[in-house]
Amino acid sequence: MSDGVNRQILLMEKPTGKLGPEHFKMSKAGIPDARDGEALLRVRYISLDAANRAWMHGATYRAAVEPNTVMAGGGIAEVISSKAPGLAPGDIVFGDTGWQDYAAVPAKHLSKMPKVEPMTHLLSVYGIAGLTAYFGLLDVGKPKAGETVVVSAAAGSVGSIVGQIAKIKGCHVVGIAGGKDKCNWLTSELGFDAAVDYKDGAVFKALRTAAPKGIDVYFDNVGGDILEACLAQMNNRGRVACCGAISQYDGAPSATGPRGVPGLIVIKRLVMQGFIVTDFMGQRDEALSDLQSWVASGKLKVQEDVINGLENTPKALIGLLAGENRGKRMVKV
Amino acid sequence: MSDGVNRQILLMEKPTGKLGPEHFKMSKAGIPDARDGEALLRVRYISLDAANRAWMHGATYRAAVEPNTVMAGGGIAEVISSKAPGLAPGDIVFGDTGWQDYAAVPAKHLSKMPKVEPMTHLLSVYGIAGLTAYFGLLDVGKPKAGETVVVSAAAGSVGSIVGQIAKIKGCHVVGIAGGKDKCNWLTSELGFDAAVDYKDGAVFKALRTAAPKGIDVYFDNVGGDILEACLAQMNNRGRVACCGAISQYDGAPSATGPRGVPGLIVIKRLVMQGFIVTDFMGQRDEALSDLQSWVASGKLKVQEDVINGLENTPKALIGLLAGENRGKRMVKV
Repeated sequence: MSDGVNRQILLMEKPTGKLGPEHFKMSKAGIPDARDGEALLRVRYISLDAANRAWMHGATYRAAVEPNTVMAGGGIAEVISSKAPGLAPGDIVFGDTGWQDYAAVPAKHLSKMPKVEPMTHLLSVYGIAGLTAYFGLLDVGKPKAGETVVVSAAAGSVGSIVGQIAKIKGCHVVGIAGGKDKCNWLTSELGFDAAVDYKDGAVFKALRTAAPKGIDVYFDNVGGDILEACLAQMNNRGRVACCGAISQYDGAPSATGPRGVPGLIVIKRLVMQGFIVTDFMGQRDEALSDLQSWVASGKLKVQEDVINGLENTPKALIGLLAGENRGKRMVKV
Repeated sequence: MSDGVNRQILLMEKPTGKLGPEHFKMSKAGIPDARDGEALLRVRYISLDAANRAWMHGATYRAAVEPNTVMAGGGIAEVISSKAPGLAPGDIVFGDTGWQDYAAVPAKHLSKMPKVEPMTHLLSVYGIAGLTAYFGLLDVGKPKAGETVVVSAAAGSVGSIVGQIAKIKGCHVVGIAGGKDKCNWLTSELGFDAAVDYKDGAVFKALRTAAPKGIDVYFDNVGGDILEACLAQMNNRGRVACCGAISQYDGAPSATGPRGVPGLIVIKRLVMQGFIVTDFMGQRDEALSDLQSWVASGKLKVQEDVINGLENTPKALIGLLAGENRGKRMVKV
């Protein structure tokens, strides 16, 4: 951020247990030059996502992050200089900038973004979070009006949008979240029909009360015990949209999977389907147009959790994994 | 089978552990009369299916079987007398006749069958087994030519047909079965490209060798450890057709599910889908026409395992659960 210096946060080692501040180190380098085909970027906002932690386990849909390199992460950035056709100074782009002030990135790995106010919406409702919610719910979960939709990590960036879209589509919507405050917020502010506090124990029973007609669509962000409880309450021909497994990311991977797989899948003719938002990018414009009109009409509320300062990025991720955030968490660099 | 006597095999209690002969009892009753809307049937062949055992655990897609009643089971039967329109003496029907010589069954629960030689094919390739293989593979698994298809319980009634249809569709086909003899039979007689003997240990490694390009479609009849091994080797966008969970039926239900659920489903964008053959009955004629032409041309070999005598039905089911059979097991009453 200061003259000629590029602050960078390195991942020092891959954690085998819980992620902590000791796994990161702030370092300083020179500002890189853009090579042919690249743009030099000034990073503005860094996206924090549970997936950041999953990347540390090994290759997923992307290569693993490696020790002693700049921690990977998506961000919104401004083009400072460009040696790539189609990108000019002042342009706003999204890409894997990593956790640093500046990055030189090949233009083919960047998406040019529209100028939106506030810019943070490019990381929340009009970014990966909003599109993940949109496509995962509508194209994978396929809810019909009157059906019951349950979403876990419901107060998070994706879950909070999933539940609101399901309400727009006329569903009975139940959110699962940690803590009374988040649960109250879901029902009083975001219009969820009911909320289940998983920290209160007895998730199975609470879910039975909140979803008395059973579950038609379960949007799963967490895996583990909560997935197990939902599977047992799915209706025939129910759909499970497998978006993530937060419960499994931070620490050693679970030694077992959910009971009822595959027995309940067979008996109830369930579909469990994994998806990644980038698979749906061909339909992005249509999705953005829907999201924009819902935001404009006030049907979709956007919740953001912006933390100041690059130096706070490790803490911001560790807190996200502990469920601190409400809505989309990001760091203003 | 003799004058005026209807031999019946009763399920005496629901087994909590392994199913044994002590759970059954042969009993005798009079031959029932057909009431209005019913047909009186002489049972000819009783179908043995792993699902028979699952019914003892509780309600599935049908009500649980209850202690001290005639054991439920599908069968091919001849109409002796009828008080139902559309059914006449001599007609051949399929329905839940139960394990007995005679049954009076409401016509609405019976399917009239064509006269086929041998009649046993109505329980194997043209029955539930053949149709389950057909729809589960083609409509749920959706294999493309050149893809790798793996099927478990591959020497069984469904699996042996799944693998052959996958070959007809141009796939690389791997069967998982118990024992060297069955494995040799799959490759030398049925044309499978490779077979993995799960009794030989090291299923994961053997599967890696047999399916070097990874698995695109896994047709799962067994659940448990074998499902886990296959999930780990699925390719991106792979499909798991969940047909059954034989490994879980005979004994206490497993306390855990397969590792990798939902993590691998997310990362690889897998679809796991349960199905029941009756969901597809609207497309039955088309399926039967395909199956008949494949049998006629010799592309599809039909393997049947016919055991004589109603009194041997409990033993036949117990043996089936232990993996004794090759192809479709049934009892000639």
